[in-house]
Amino acid sequence: MILVNGEFRDYIEIADRGFQYGDGLFETIAVVGGKPAFWHQHWQRLQSGCRCLNIPLPNPEILFSEAKNLCRQADKGVLKIIVTRGAGGRGYRQPNDIVPNRVLSLHPFPDYPDSYKEKGITARFCTTRLGLNTVLAGIKHLNRLEQVLARAEWTDPAIQEGIMLDNNAHVIEGTMTNLFYAKNDTLYTSAIVQAGIAGVMRHIILSLSSSRGLPAVEHLYSINELLSADEIFVCNSIIGIWPVNRIADTDYPVGPKTKLIQQWLGGYNQEM
Amino acid sequence: MILVNGEFRDYIEIADRGFQYGDGLFETIAVVGGKPAFWHQHWQRLQSGCRCLNIPLPNPEILFSEAKNLCRQADKGVLKIIVTRGAGGRGYRQPNDIVPNRVLSLHPFPDYPDSYKEKGITARFCTTRLGLNTVLAGIKHLNRLEQVLARAEWTDPAIQEGIMLDNNAHVIEGTMTNLFYAKNDTLYTSAIVQAGIAGVMRHIILSLSSSRGLPAVEHLYSINELLSADEIFVCNSIIGIWPVNRIADTDYPVGPKTKLIQQWLGGYNQEM
Repeated sequence: MILVNGEFRDYIEIADRGFQYGDGLFETIAVVGGKPAFWHQHWQRLQSGCRCLNIPLPNPEILFSEAKNLCRQADKGVLKIIVTRGAGGRGYRQPNDIVPNRVLSLHPFPDYPDSYKEKGITARFCTTRLGLNTVLAGIKHLNRLEQVLARAEWTDPAIQEGIMLDNNAHVIEGTMTNLFYAKNDTLYTSAIVQAGIAGVMRHIILSLSSSRGLPAVEHLYSINELLSADEIFVCNSIIGIWPVNRIADTDYPVGPKTKLIQQWLGGYNQEM
Repeated sequence: MILVNGEFRDYIEIADRGFQYGDGLFETIAVVGGKPAFWHQHWQRLQSGCRCLNIPLPNPEILFSEAKNLCRQADKGVLKIIVTRGAGGRGYRQPNDIVPNRVLSLHPFPDYPDSYKEKGITARFCTTRLGLNTVLAGIKHLNRLEQVLARAEWTDPAIQEGIMLDNNAHVIEGTMTNLFYAKNDTLYTSAIVQAGIAGVMRHIILSLSSSRGLPAVEHLYSINELLSADEIFVCNSIIGIWPVNRIADTDYPVGPKTKLIQQWLGGYNQEM
């Protein structure tokens, strides 16, 4: 079920700059009980992405109303929103009169076993690196070939996520998740300054940690720092939190910090 | 006029991975005398891009036949070919049964004054940098936000092209062109190893230089090396060669090497 600028259809003009250049943004939102979860946070990120790319913001009331109407069709699912700069002539230069396109689509919830969040997953390191770009870092734009190539590196179904480094060999994130680790009494995640997506679930976890007294540090770190962690987990808006119990032939427990944060997200994760 | 998989239509499915992730490739081809110019070279590059992204190749006879049929509609114009990985589920993982989409569109030839190729253009340096990715370097893929952002840096119509550096401050290319300079008796252009597009016109110029005894060097170079050049020019399949007569407050002549290579391209440029 797809809404394009408020109209039910499943196609977009060839001239759309999202198709031509990846000139746009997206949000992937969990649908829980027929409603878009963490709408406010997704809307905030979409806004900051639009500002960054200088794409006019969709009308928030219309967007929310369309999102609610679609989500009503599914108790549990995934809502994807794409906002592009709209149709423009051939060439990178932006048209003077930008009319953005907005696309909302409803998808089934992915069929992940419960064991992923309870017992954890196996991750690997990808060889595909994330390029550095301080302007694009953080925003969830439509240029995702790096993630596509990274995800194509493995087909083994026993591996659930691939961890990506940037061109400076800093550990940044999973192909579809943000990455955290805990060491001693502190939580760590990559600083999103030159590469990576500032995920909504990452933001929620950092906010919860801050308000509940768990020290959390955003910094740039190496593979060795990651591997010396006590606990590791990945997160996104759809899966919530998955502990990483194995990476690079090293086992990690589903540790107390990971469980604590899963509890904090409690109702949310249970409904997932 | 647009052909999608051989059918006249101007839209693509929302589920197409070109739209979702920029998961595809493109070629921009000059139409000269109702025919696609340098077809062989464009096809070669499309092939190498498909291999790099692991997208099944379009059938070459069908693609060429469609291209010829479209080009017949215009004595002079631009043919754009987009090949995407086709429709795939939500998520970066590639579907097992890939059915690529091919889109051919015919556009008017851009209205550039003759003075650009005769007297040269003014260029500027862009602040938007090209990220480094050894796998993606060279290929003309659909992730073009860096070029979109770079092209959005200026609106002054007196400036015709912006020159982009990579994250290591090497001079790589223009937003829509490759860049050459001549110094003493040698031609130089950026090595396309970590960033940049290996343009068809760049390839033709390097081949001509090699076969006609003009030493040509592909290397990574700094702004200072560029600015110390005797001559500078930009090139692509549509414009041929434009001398750069001004950049960073420095003037450059339309020099003998530039004119020589323009002559080599002779018939081609005249027909442009």
